[in-house]
Amino acid sequence: MTLINRQITLASRPVGFPEVSNFQLVYCPLPTLAKGDVLLRAVYLSLDPGLRARMNDAGPDAGTVGVGEVLSGGGVAFVMESLDPEFRAGETVEGVLGWQEFAVISGRDLRKIDPSLAPISTALGVLGLPGLTAFFGLLDIAGPQRGETVVVSGAAGAVGMIVGQIAKIKGCRVVGVAGSDAQTSWLLDELGFDAAFNCRTVADCCDTLQEHCPAGIDIYFDNEGGAITDAVMRLINPGARISVCAQVSQYNLEEPEKGPRWLGQLIVKQAKVEGFLVSSFAKRFPEGLEQLATWLKEGKLKYREDVALGIEAAPQAFIGMLRGKSRGKQLVRLLEP
Amino acid sequence: MTLINRQITLASRPVGFPEVSNFQLVYCPLPTLAKGDVLLRAVYLSLDPGLRARMNDAGPDAGTVGVGEVLSGGGVAFVMESLDPEFRAGETVEGVLGWQEFAVISGRDLRKIDPSLAPISTALGVLGLPGLTAFFGLLDIAGPQRGETVVVSGAAGAVGMIVGQIAKIKGCRVVGVAGSDAQTSWLLDELGFDAAFNCRTVADCCDTLQEHCPAGIDIYFDNEGGAITDAVMRLINPGARISVCAQVSQYNLEEPEKGPRWLGQLIVKQAKVEGFLVSSFAKRFPEGLEQLATWLKEGKLKYREDVALGIEAAPQAFIGMLRGKSRGKQLVRLLEP
Repeated sequence: MTLINRQITLASRPVGFPEVSNFQLVYCPLPTLAKGDVLLRAVYLSLDPGLRARMNDAGPDAGTVGVGEVLSGGGVAFVMESLDPEFRAGETVEGVLGWQEFAVISGRDLRKIDPSLAPISTALGVLGLPGLTAFFGLLDIAGPQRGETVVVSGAAGAVGMIVGQIAKIKGCRVVGVAGSDAQTSWLLDELGFDAAFNCRTVADCCDTLQEHCPAGIDIYFDNEGGAITDAVMRLINPGARISVCAQVSQYNLEEPEKGPRWLGQLIVKQAKVEGFLVSSFAKRFPEGLEQLATWLKEGKLKYREDVALGIEAAPQAFIGMLRGKSRGKQLVRLLEP
Repeated sequence: MTLINRQITLASRPVGFPEVSNFQLVYCPLPTLAKGDVLLRAVYLSLDPGLRARMNDAGPDAGTVGVGEVLSGGGVAFVMESLDPEFRAGETVEGVLGWQEFAVISGRDLRKIDPSLAPISTALGVLGLPGLTAFFGLLDIAGPQRGETVVVSGAAGAVGMIVGQIAKIKGCRVVGVAGSDAQTSWLLDELGFDAAFNCRTVADCCDTLQEHCPAGIDIYFDNEGGAITDAVMRLINPGARISVCAQVSQYNLEEPEKGPRWLGQLIVKQAKVEGFLVSSFAKRFPEGLEQLATWLKEGKLKYREDVALGIEAAPQAFIGMLRGKSRGKQLVRLLEP
């Protein structure tokens, strides 16, 4: 039986918000397996806002996707065939599969998932890179202390929703900045945020933040950048820590945006701003996953998924996510589990 | 004998660069001493670029000087009379005296100087707050490692010249950004910087930096902000540390300036930006001073002073310093030593 793979490649670099025409559905045969390779059937594909930055031609450091290349992204898959003795057909794994239905990947780059612990889709969310990003980005970069005020932008996203809940576990006051009223309600009613607001509809982001942060801001976990970050910078407390995870508001701009300079504020407030990539914590992933799984089992962490169906639906779901329409972690289901 | 004090007060808040008319020379009697107070005759007054920021109405956190108040600044003085048993007439001390010829200050806020160790003016420079600012701001905030490239803006200033020399002691490649050709020559010929350039005359600051930093930038010690900092941000290496000490380029702007946003760059480069005030290291000042004095004695640290004469000369000397005319640490001598 010859398997035909379906992939989605970058047809052209988007200018501003991506359009469906920037993506192309491609049919192609599968490569043959070399020693150590594993043939995978993708079940879930993860759509990540950070991919938008990699669709620009920003140089090799930024992990740029080339035109004509398969879009990158994590996925959960079943093993169909394995030339790596660590894996057997039928097992469930997680890895950077790309936007495609089948993938051939070295076993070294795969992580085995235990389907009895939690739904396998959580390997792309709370028990995967988004959860780990929240865990290390909040706890290691910002070091929250009981009673501190933590602001999270992109609070209803895959990372933001976990950040806010971990900050609550650590005894902080948590204020979420989200992109829709539905997201705001969910943060307040379901996830137990102390305050949340829709940054697209408030008159003045800084006034609203000030109202919700009467004791100032000790920690800011930044997924968005732009005007929200400008407002936060005016309200930081002495000793504030800012953990910079993503800059979603900037990824779709046609021209780079200028903003107020705030380095003087960092001096006066003796504050720190640190960018990070979760990959730098790779050696400590098992520690993070164990704690996240414990909190999940104890009911202290909740999550929500927004699932599109079929690889053809991925571009539209990705664009919708960038426009703030997702309700929870955005996934694409490629195979009925 | 009734002593008449001469002080310089803030006559009006400057708009843009200060002018002599923003300052006023005031004659007034001295206050009587209370228990614990010390009467001082100022010998040297330190002029610090950071004072410019405090001449704006930037709120209480920023240490704003009120209109009609004496301008703040450190000084070295002789003790004339003491109601603090720790001090005796004739001793030399350092403290925040303000711009005045005599001062009455609590002994708790004074530091005794040993005139046999080094010229007493060094208590305002290499063996004072500028030296300590360089020491902790470079070593603790940025943590230089042998072989790394360190860029210093305001490199010929009181702090910058020490930062560059400490970075050399630690085995780094040191690139200084200064405001005049005379300063540039001095950094290269006298202080042993590996490279230095005049940011006011180069065609493109980023191109020039790139030329002088072929291996990228690992550490940036920022005294200036503005366009130099923008250029540095484009050239930082993975794991870069940016220590933010001052933002002199911003202090004289009539309107706050906007600049390119670079938080996305911090993520990709996993870089850290931290503002600091030297006061937060107060408990460790003795450790810093001991090391700085050792390096000075060993000839590993050089310094230069630019000395104006008489309190009347302070405003013009301060304005000249902000315009990059000082050659070394800017002082005012108020009394022949």
